[in-house]
Amino acid sequence: MQALRFDGTVRLEREAPPPLPGPGEALVDVHLAGICATDLEITRGYMGYQGILGHEFVGTVRQSPEGTLNGQRVVGEINAGCGECDWCRRGLQTHCPTRTVIGIQGREGAFAEQIALPARNLHRVPAEISDEEAAFVEPLAAAFRIVEQVPVGPLHRVVLLGDGRLGLLAAQVLALTGCDLVALGHHPEKLALLEARGIRTAAPEEVPTHRADVVVDATGSPEGFAQALALTRPQGIVVLKTTCAGRSPVALAPLVVDEVTVVGSRCGPFAPALRALAERKVDVRPLIAACYPLSDGVAALEHAGRPGVLKVLLDCRA
Amino acid sequence: MQALRFDGTVRLEREAPPPLPGPGEALVDVHLAGICATDLEITRGYMGYQGILGHEFVGTVRQSPEGTLNGQRVVGEINAGCGECDWCRRGLQTHCPTRTVIGIQGREGAFAEQIALPARNLHRVPAEISDEEAAFVEPLAAAFRIVEQVPVGPLHRVVLLGDGRLGLLAAQVLALTGCDLVALGHHPEKLALLEARGIRTAAPEEVPTHRADVVVDATGSPEGFAQALALTRPQGIVVLKTTCAGRSPVALAPLVVDEVTVVGSRCGPFAPALRALAERKVDVRPLIAACYPLSDGVAALEHAGRPGVLKVLLDCRA
Repeated sequence: MQALRFDGTVRLEREAPPPLPGPGEALVDVHLAGICATDLEITRGYMGYQGILGHEFVGTVRQSPEGTLNGQRVVGEINAGCGECDWCRRGLQTHCPTRTVIGIQGREGAFAEQIALPARNLHRVPAEISDEEAAFVEPLAAAFRIVEQVPVGPLHRVVLLGDGRLGLLAAQVLALTGCDLVALGHHPEKLALLEARGIRTAAPEEVPTHRADVVVDATGSPEGFAQALALTRPQGIVVLKTTCAGRSPVALAPLVVDEVTVVGSRCGPFAPALRALAERKVDVRPLIAACYPLSDGVAALEHAGRPGVLKVLLDCRA
Repeated sequence: MQALRFDGTVRLEREAPPPLPGPGEALVDVHLAGICATDLEITRGYMGYQGILGHEFVGTVRQSPEGTLNGQRVVGEINAGCGECDWCRRGLQTHCPTRTVIGIQGREGAFAEQIALPARNLHRVPAEISDEEAAFVEPLAAAFRIVEQVPVGPLHRVVLLGDGRLGLLAAQVLALTGCDLVALGHHPEKLALLEARGIRTAAPEEVPTHRADVVVDATGSPEGFAQALALTRPQGIVVLKTTCAGRSPVALAPLVVDEVTVVGSRCGPFAPALRALAERKVDVRPLIAACYPLSDGVAALEHAGRPGVLKVLLDCRA
């Protein structure tokens, strides 16, 4: 099969061996896959991962230990836990210390014609959701993780920092809570997508400092954290979604003086993401910048890495 | 009066004007004052403060708008709020945006024969507590702030990082909660003070990583944060007490991947600190390294700044 592999450089593999599902695993024919900032970070050394890239996908189950899944259109949670440790027993396989993560850690990814992953990771996609939309379920779930971790509601002043791929999803999720939301970014054309949905936007310098109850850093940039701290009120909360390789200069004293709480936030629940898409509460379609065939995957990754580009999809059907 | 002033350099002022108490303020004759890491950081530029240093003290009220305080032995909370903003109305004058802080921000400090501060900031010291012990109430209250912010109890694995002045107080406070505590440091002679009280100690490299529910960084060093993150389990809590001037290289991605919560922690409640001292639940006396007369304050600060030195007190009585 064709697959997009990173082994120091990104290259298209034309004759990759198809994945062999292990016990409890399903084999999925990938329709579409989305390119995420994490994929780009990995090609810069983040996580030290080498293998087939990609973790956002929608596909059809070709073969599954649970026969009822066969032929179903599915999306998949990306963390595969051992199933036996304390974390897995508590339903937190996202934090299993020996987990694999598709396209990120010890498990081949979704930029391929087929992918294998545990059948329990799969969620059926309702007919109301198109393939293009379903490709966004994984990052949209990561946006829902914010409100799973931090109570946000109509009483809260919330600032969303960053108008990139994740920022535009997080803004729409935060807006569902009825909070007093402003989304900050430097790209008027992207902020316009939020304005069109009734979400207030601004340039970062237009917002008063030390005022927000909750600030979400979805900038994807090392500078985002300092910006987030400056916008947060004393005893407020910063939700950190940005993962960057390496170390960045950070002033931690303001965090202590203002007694801010910082919450690291990673993967999220698929069910509310599927529901929000099915009920048209969130619109991901304007975020699609381009769709490339998998065979042009190297060009697609290059496109996704250009400044300001939103979601680039890969069509993985043979 | 005599006072120890920082105006770019630290110097003893022999004829400083005595403080003039404002409305609602008391005038206190200082007995003893303690030198804190923050005082030393200020002399390196932290907070940009210039003026009389010092914020840990015990003294006797000479004059007060509330007559009942006159002649009483007191300690004092260091933040003076405006009394009228939302923060002050909610009892959180520690976060009043226009607050002054004795010896740290906009208000003369306690390394002086006399200090003025709002009468509402004062707490009477019970007779069971000596002056030497009472000089520790402010930093001990900062240690109690940890358990005011983060629920810690017998079910929790807790690591205390740092065997300096604040670390030794925080370890004793954490031990009161019945948690599974280990205090980490590099100075066997200081850790022995905790061992003598039945608190388990270790060298940092002896403790497994990614295992503690709560890690308290009281190292006072920029490296403490990375150490704390490495020791914390996924979804665990880091309490950050360290304030350092400037920026340090920090890797934030592990915080996101492990979904750690970081809680900045500053000033704390005086009542439990006074109670713990009165009831002999915490012993601060072994932490006293030296006591200098205020007139030798420059030498005292130099002494407190040497590596490994615990609490240096100043006797401010004329």
